Amino acid sequence: MTEANQATLAQAPVEYLDLPALTDLLQRIFLRHGTSAEVARVLADNCARAERDGSHSHGVFRIPGYLSSLASGWVNGQAVPQVEDVAPGVVAVDAGGGFAQPALAAARALLLSKARSAGIAVLAIRNSHHFAALWPDVEPFAEEGLVALSLVNSMTCVVPHGAQRPLFGTNPIAFAAPREGAEPIVFDLATSAIAHGDVQIAKRQGQQLPPGMGVDRDGQPTCDPAAILDGGALLPFGGHKGSALSMMVELLAAALTGGNFSFEFDWSQHPGAQTPWTGQLLIVIDPNHLGGGRFAQRSGELVRQMQAVGLERMPGDRRYRTRAKSLEHGIPLAVAELARLRALAGDD
Amino acid sequence: MTEANQATLAQAPVEYLDLPALTDLLQRIFLRHGTSAEVARVLADNCARAERDGSHSHGVFRIPGYLSSLASGWVNGQAVPQVEDVAPGVVAVDAGGGFAQPALAAARALLLSKARSAGIAVLAIRNSHHFAALWPDVEPFAEEGLVALSLVNSMTCVVPHGAQRPLFGTNPIAFAAPREGAEPIVFDLATSAIAHGDVQIAKRQGQQLPPGMGVDRDGQPTCDPAAILDGGALLPFGGHKGSALSMMVELLAAALTGGNFSFEFDWSQHPGAQTPWTGQLLIVIDPNHLGGGRFAQRSGELVRQMQAVGLERMPGDRRYRTRAKSLEHGIPLAVAELARLRALAGDD
Repeated sequence: MTEANQATLAQAPVEYLDLPALTDLLQRIFLRHGTSAEVARVLADNCARAERDGSHSHGVFRIPGYLSSLASGWVNGQAVPQVEDVAPGVVAVDAGGGFAQPALAAARALLLSKARSAGIAVLAIRNSHHFAALWPDVEPFAEEGLVALSLVNSMTCVVPHGAQRPLFGTNPIAFAAPREGAEPIVFDLATSAIAHGDVQIAKRQGQQLPPGMGVDRDGQPTCDPAAILDGGALLPFGGHKGSALSMMVELLAAALTGGNFSFEFDWSQHPGAQTPWTGQLLIVIDPNHLGGGRFAQRSGELVRQMQAVGLERMPGDRRYRTRAKSLEHGIPLAVAELARLRALAGDD
Repeated sequence: MTEANQATLAQAPVEYLDLPALTDLLQRIFLRHGTSAEVARVLADNCARAERDGSHSHGVFRIPGYLSSLASGWVNGQAVPQVEDVAPGVVAVDAGGGFAQPALAAARALLLSKARSAGIAVLAIRNSHHFAALWPDVEPFAEEGLVALSLVNSMTCVVPHGAQRPLFGTNPIAFAAPREGAEPIVFDLATSAIAHGDVQIAKRQGQQLPPGMGVDRDGQPTCDPAAILDGGALLPFGGHKGSALSMMVELLAAALTGGNFSFEFDWSQHPGAQTPWTGQLLIVIDPNHLGGGRFAQRSGELVRQMQAVGLERMPGDRRYRTRAKSLEHGIPLAVAELARLRALAGDD
């Protein structure tokens, strides 16, 4: 979320909910719109934590998209993930056309156990829909002292570097690592030059984008957000390097897991569908096997040195600051937004 | 190497050597400058393959740097890597202050065996010097049907995004994946905006760099390669995203392995030292455990679709084309360069 949006939020009348209250409200919304109790629990927890931490583009802002996809029949809100114990370092999950987060939750204990005993383990989720931020999938592993890397592909909207038409998704990469005496080091970056939501916001606010963000419907570079949204596409971040990483996400999150590439699924028979039906990979390493078991001290040392050369904000710092504020004062929600959420939950 | 560099090379009088002849020449150079037979074999093979494939910045161009580091006593050309069988998915190697490539060679069989049985395995090399391209470390795994990802940190020359002074190395990430009926998909990208070798080449040729590559000794943006090399520094590629990935490389290649961060080693007592003394991580996944064992077909499908949206050149394609030419005509070496190499080998 841009500073401008934060200012807008700050000006709107807000009400404060604590995390359990927001989670409960969202859980009731999911339940009322056709998910199982377990799916409602997992998605509500994920979405409420994003809102708590100021990840607004993946917080309650996403609820209408979730419900629209559920109503369209595109995603199975009742799916029961099938966990497969494949090898000493491999867990696979068939998410059954449901969401990726319940699949991760179902496989988590086995994945942790394998990572601790084998030193490294991989979770391959397929036949899954990921509509959330990616950092909530990796941060909890770092809180348990493990290093985690996750990749998820999404839906065609990014032109590979050197190509003319879109193929890749925004294909984020998220990473989390423990740090002694402090919150984990966490980042979550789209391999597109800009998030789709930020293009929509720029259009709404009549702003031009910086160069290098996207192309129009003819594949020509443009700074006009409307031209990008009207049949155009995004570019990868960092030219051919970001494009190579986006390709790697397609290979690891889809080809390796057995999920769909970002360009493969066809939701045209499901008007209202918004959730990409792809795959997700998660690699977890137990650093206690390596480097004399001093990983968390060493990562703390790296951060100190980054600060010593002038770094003022670590990746994730803004989330942690917002989280601390939310824990103290509650999670601020615009009154109108909260009313809509309560109506969706069937509250009076 | 830029097209301009290729043109320069094309204009100089050249002599052609086949791969075994170049490898033999380089091997004799290493042996004559104090390495063990095994180290000479591994480094010569690596360097000759880089030259064969047109990776000129990591080909014979590097020989003077190797020899200078060896002569300074900074790197141990006689080191015998100590391989540790740590866990079902973990191999560690203490490279003994020698080069990373012999450490990888020593651990390779055990790493392969663990990746095949556990499905995923990680190799952690520490106390090692990496002075070569990274793609030669991953490509051979893809040739055996495996997916490989490697990260190596180097030496302080990159300013973290948002900081004032350099801390990170050029910290490359290399990835290789098998593809049915074709060469593997391979990329090797520095997380700096430009490789250090390319800055050196631009300086030697009196060329300016594009904007966004580096800063001078006062931290001001500059396009002058000499200003970057004379107390200046490089920038990460892709702004805060590339910077986050470079940080991840420090964490995984150094903190996790037990190696040095890019800013930790002090070679001031070894004039002539050029090889960074750090660590390297390599993750290998056996795709036969996942996705119905169809990974190589699926990666082939991804490439076909990338071509269908207009991609003309895959990452690695130029290397494969140069390789094919070298196999047909021999590896072109400037006559003057070859004379220098032969003198270093003690030939008449």
